[in-house]
Amino acid sequence: MEEDDFLEHLVLLKTICLSAEAKDEPHVVAVASKNTYGDNRPVPIASLRLSVLPMISLDGFEFIPPVAFELKSGTGPVYLNGQHLILEDDEEYEARGGWLAEESLSSSAVVEEDTVTTFNSS
Amino acid sequence: MEEDDFLEHLVLLKTICLSAEAKDEPHVVAVASKNTYGDNRPVPIASLRLSVLPMISLDGFEFIPPVAFELKSGTGPVYLNGQHLILEDDEEYEARGGWLAEESLSSSAVVEEDTVTTFNSS
Amino acid sequence: MEEDDFLEHLVLLKTICLSAEAKDEPHVVAVASKNTYGDNRPVPIASLRLSVLPMISLDGFEFIPPVAFELKSGTGPVYLNGQHLILEDDEEYEARGGWLAEESLSSSAVVEEDTVTTFNSS
Amino acid sequence: MEEDDFLEHLVLLKTICLSAEAKDEPHVVAVASKNTYGDNRPVPIASLRLSVLPMISLDGFEFIPPVAFELKSGTGPVYLNGQHLILEDDEEYEARGGWLAEESLSSSAVVEEDTVTTFNSS
Amino acid sequence: MEEDDFLEHLVLLKTICLSAEAKDEPHVVAVASKNTYGDNRPVPIASLRLSVLPMISLDGFEFIPPVAFELKSGTGPVYLNGQHLILEDDEEYEARGGWLAEESLSSSAVVEEDTVTTFNSS
Repeated sequence: MEEDDFLEHLVLLKTICLSAEAKDEPHVVAVASKNTYGDNRPVPIASLRLSVLPMISLDGFEFIPPVAFELKSGTGPVYLNGQHLILEDDEEYEARGGWLAEESLSSSAVVEEDTVTTFNSS
Repeated sequence: MEEDDFLEHLVLLKTICLSAEAKDEPHVVAVASKNTYGDNRPVPIASLRLSVLPMISLDGFEFIPPVAFELKSGTGPVYLNGQHLILEDDEEYEARGGWLAEESLSSSAVVEEDTVTTFNSS
Repeated sequence: MEEDDFLEHLVLLKTICLSAEAKDEPHVVAVASKNTYGDNRPVPIASLRLSVLPMISLDGFEFIPPVAFELKSGTGPVYLNGQHLILEDDEEYEARGGWLAEESLSSSAVVEEDTVTTFNSS
Repeated sequence: MEEDDFLEHLVLLKTICLSAEAKDEPHVVAVASKNTYGDNRPVPIASLRLSVLPMISLDGFEFIPPVAFELKSGTGPVYLNGQHLILEDDEEYEARGGWLAEESLSSSAVVEEDTVTTFNSS
Repeated sequence: MEEDDFLEHLVLLKTICLSAEAKDEPHVVAVASKNTYGDNRPVPIASLRLSVLPMISLDGFEFIPPVAFELKSGTGPVYLNGQHLILEDDEEYEARGGWLAEESLSSSAVVEEDTVTTFNSS
């Protein structure tokens, strides 16, 4: 494996959960990612409420960082958890149609009112 | 890899969630897809309600676009999120029984009363 | 690939959801499948109620068709959605321990009181 | 493939659901499996209640049979569903790091008060 | 396979559930793992409540042990279940971009007020 292999970053979102201190109001989490079609308007991906559905488990929702999360409704805080994969795209693997996960780091973020949270690849 | 490799498109639906502004009434999302058997009548795939279950996480429900979503019950808006995969079906991969995901784009749609939303592959 | 390759059918159940018109009573969906051990008594796989849990997302619950679904409790209607995979079992793939999904079709069914719904492979 | 290939059994738990006749009280399902560390005290894996969360869908929770399930709380009945995989571990596959699913059977069990239910591999 | 092959440990969290004896108050489970970015402040991954959402099923949330879980809110007990995988990273597999699961053990933990629970790899 050579040094100059191309590296790709991937964020796999796994859970989104409300803080025990969040108000009992609808919380809608939206995401803006460069791998979104056309315009970059944030798109709602989760709708939670403390007295109804305080968390959701996702089956590895993939995003290419940087990914920006924001609250469209609610005041939070809302916790997002996932894995940050650093992928190796060398020729052998490309030929095999797969990727090699070189490193996997836990990744997390908090979104609150009037903030935009970005997962960066560093 | 040759230019003329056959390209397939696939939509992987990941989350369906209600807007914080949706009425507290049952929302039933139906889908019509060309990979549905026989007639193309929309088939309900999700049943949500703001005070009961405001969102659902799907384990990558696959559709071949164009896919049309509509509300059978409720007035929305309902947000659908997923990934649009552009797959490469070249001979080597076919021989291996797999696909090569050439590109993966976030994909989203909003369904509201009296509208049909289509995910197109462009 | 020869014509006489053995074809296998598989139903991957993805979501089960209640109609907005369903009564607010417990709905229990049972399944009888030929790949069930011993006797073929229907086995409950889902328990839903409109005011509590109106739908469930399954991680691709596999059945070999024909599969018969019926309501053990409740009057429905209940919608079942999934994918019908037609698998190719040729020698090369068998040697690799995998299957080749030749075709994937959306598949759906409705179960109501006093009915048995069968997913057939045609 | 030789006759004497080593066979492994695996139970993939997919859904756990309450009967419509279950009392509206907390139901906690525990599991004891030989692949549990150290002592074999049953470990709670699910917490359900008819008026709150009548079922859960698991992403293929794996157990090596025999697996014993019991109710730590509640009187049931609770239905457990899954797939019983019979795996082939021949040398070629071992070399490939994978398993060959030779057979996949639907598998189910009912747990009630004061009973222990075992999934056996026969 | 040589003795000196490098071994990696992985914890796959599958379910988090409340005891039937837990108080009806918000329970927030946080995790601190060495594969967390930068500082090791525990990050909330689950938000449960007995009368709202008494359990969650995760799609194999991965952690590299030792992993410490603690309750940020609530008094518990909360049960965590998963699989402890011991992976073999020999050269042949590295070349194939995959891992060989040498052993898979059920793994569980209980978190209660003022305790930190660690999954160790022994």
